[in-house]
Amino acid sequence: MRDSQPAVADVRMRGFSSRARVATALDWIERNVRALAPEAVALDHLYGRVLAADVTSGLDVPAFDRAAMDGYALRGAETVGAGEYNPLVFELRGAALPGRPYEGVVLPGTAIRIMTGAPMPEGADAIVPAEFARECDERVEVAAPFATGKHVGHRAEDVRAGALIMQSGRRLRAQDVGLLASVGVDAASVIRRPRVRIVASGDELVAPGGPKGIYQIYDANSPMLRALAARDGALIESALRVRDDRPAIREAMLAPGADVVLISGGSSVGAEDHAPGLLAEMGEVVIHGIAMRPSSPAGFGRLNDTLVFLLPGNPVSCLCAYDFFAGRALRLLGGRAADWPHRRQRAALKRKIASAVGRVDYCRVRLTGGEAEPLALSGASILSSTTRADGFVIVPEESEGYAPGSEVCVYCYEAFG
Amino acid sequence: MRDSQPAVADVRMRGFSSRARVATALDWIERNVRALAPEAVALDHLYGRVLAADVTSGLDVPAFDRAAMDGYALRGAETVGAGEYNPLVFELRGAALPGRPYEGVVLPGTAIRIMTGAPMPEGADAIVPAEFARECDERVEVAAPFATGKHVGHRAEDVRAGALIMQSGRRLRAQDVGLLASVGVDAASVIRRPRVRIVASGDELVAPGGPKGIYQIYDANSPMLRALAARDGALIESALRVRDDRPAIREAMLAPGADVVLISGGSSVGAEDHAPGLLAEMGEVVIHGIAMRPSSPAGFGRLNDTLVFLLPGNPVSCLCAYDFFAGRALRLLGGRAADWPHRRQRAALKRKIASAVGRVDYCRVRLTGGEAEPLALSGASILSSTTRADGFVIVPEESEGYAPGSEVCVYCYEAFG
Repeated sequence: MRDSQPAVADVRMRGFSSRARVATALDWIERNVRALAPEAVALDHLYGRVLAADVTSGLDVPAFDRAAMDGYALRGAETVGAGEYNPLVFELRGAALPGRPYEGVVLPGTAIRIMTGAPMPEGADAIVPAEFARECDERVEVAAPFATGKHVGHRAEDVRAGALIMQSGRRLRAQDVGLLASVGVDAASVIRRPRVRIVASGDELVAPGGPKGIYQIYDANSPMLRALAARDGALIESALRVRDDRPAIREAMLAPGADVVLISGGSSVGAEDHAPGLLAEMGEVVIHGIAMRPSSPAGFGRLNDTLVFLLPGNPVSCLCAYDFFAGRALRLLGGRAADWPHRRQRAALKRKIASAVGRVDYCRVRLTGGEAEPLALSGASILSSTTRADGFVIVPEESEGYAPGSEVCVYCYEAFG
Repeated sequence: MRDSQPAVADVRMRGFSSRARVATALDWIERNVRALAPEAVALDHLYGRVLAADVTSGLDVPAFDRAAMDGYALRGAETVGAGEYNPLVFELRGAALPGRPYEGVVLPGTAIRIMTGAPMPEGADAIVPAEFARECDERVEVAAPFATGKHVGHRAEDVRAGALIMQSGRRLRAQDVGLLASVGVDAASVIRRPRVRIVASGDELVAPGGPKGIYQIYDANSPMLRALAARDGALIESALRVRDDRPAIREAMLAPGADVVLISGGSSVGAEDHAPGLLAEMGEVVIHGIAMRPSSPAGFGRLNDTLVFLLPGNPVSCLCAYDFFAGRALRLLGGRAADWPHRRQRAALKRKIASAVGRVDYCRVRLTGGEAEPLALSGASILSSTTRADGFVIVPEESEGYAPGSEVCVYCYEAFG
């Protein structure tokens, strides 16, 4: 186009000059979107949630000295000189199991059988592991020396009472949940998950599975947005399909219950694009029109306490605008890191990517033999380009694109298994 | 130990020689664990699931030629010669919107207003984008030429009826769900999620949140295993705490309803370790005792159609044994890739890791300034070592460990955000 129509370049440039920079949009989100209020959540549902407060242990773990091996508890000093050809003999006086301590005192010359995790009995200070001992009648032969303290797990060696074990803002991993359990925690204060309403607008949309007229299309954006929002930790408050109709869209925007409204379709400047105008009338349009490809008609704003994202109806644009802006806001609301959740990989470009200074491009690529192959950029409506792709490359606004062989950063779609 | 007790090295080696190689255990899992049967799942719940059958499109997407821009539909050949200083004028005869086509024919010298996604009207073959046109009264001035086909999205350009759009075995990403929706699919055949029963055995265990005697401990393994199994796509059938009691453990192993039983504690060779013997009596012990640290008392087997994993009670060993063996089996049952789900990163070791030939080590490390710092290896009971760690290094059985500065592969714990 640039080559064939030089005379109208300024018309296009006027179009661009009215669009916000991607950096401006991201910056607004970063500065204005804060984590939601905390809520108490039970232990079994804490995995992946974000702590809203520091957690301090109320107790020592373990709460007592204990055996770290299956074997025999005795006085370590008495094993000096023991060897395979010089076994030393101890009288066996009892046993200790986890939760079932030996109640007596281990006297000189004696030992008790003990299992891993059992409390150390009074008098004993070392464990001889079972494979270094031989039990026979009421006695045990010890075939190696074990100094005082050997194979004894000490009180509080894992966690000390009063210690800060996890900090506010931490996203809980499986073992974090385990550690909380080990100090007796059965619920924790975590950031509330954002509630998202998905609104697919368009007279032409019908639900998948039902009948469809020739000029109708199945709504692909609602299920895709549902999946994306789930990835970013949101709860789906509701998912609606509405006609290109001001009252219907107004109602979908205004109904209480959502922290974020994602509106796909009707976000541009056409006659049937009601959402931006309604948002401007009832709330605040922060950004509308962004210097990027695809998704340039995207925008967002506020309506009371709700963030409203205007996502283009073309599915690739919808995906891209969600990922650049809405997903970031959802992660911030949920207390997560704002940055792209995608795994990144460096790769050499197989073919050039053409862009333009002043515009950010989202370019789908396939990874083949360590190279990143750009898929046809044309057609924000070609959703199958994103299912054929392994990820995308972002061309920053200061770049005109990348030559073949350039090393680029590929953001990989869902980093599954 | 090796330096101070050379005389007893062969005793330890006898212990080792009775343990299975990690590779043997992994190989058995790979050869014996197959994906579960398919089930039909509704569109809104397909994200992250694994397709059990190929999906072919029943229709063209789009089903008609359509406008790819907001603008004016006309005959492209009639715009030849148009320019900013030589606008060409067309009579405006109507409009087309998505789902609301223009019913007439676009005749020579005429145009209709058209919105992105609207069906192309008969007679027209190109779109003039709105920014290259000016509308005035019943006419539109066109300021640039647009050849036949320009800005027209063609029928089936996204998906052709009859085309294979997704293959069996694919784990569905957000845009995959969108593409399925776009061809009208409202449910798909996916691999069933494995149902897991978690059994924490031990007389000393109590539920977090409740009161605890001095020699009791809070059960950390059940909530940790619940989180790990969720990560690997499993459903929790139930989670039980049972005493070290043969009938209770037998009942927990035999009850129907689970594809996998994870038993933590009581997996070793001590007097109170009932699980291995029960499994041998009622089913098959495939592996018991593995040449690794921690987790050497781990094992697994089969009981009717259920896989049973014997996980050590020490929480680090439990985590490690789950991740090496049980998690892999769950992923395979669910149709996912068997390999570690962890993000990997190369890093130089800050301090040496000591291991022994013949044994696989699982060494927790912290990543600091691009270096991997090993955390104290001692103490399979020190769960906080895994919450302080960023990931782990696996020392293979043929290695005696790594010198400081060695480049190692770090498996990062949950690749969150």
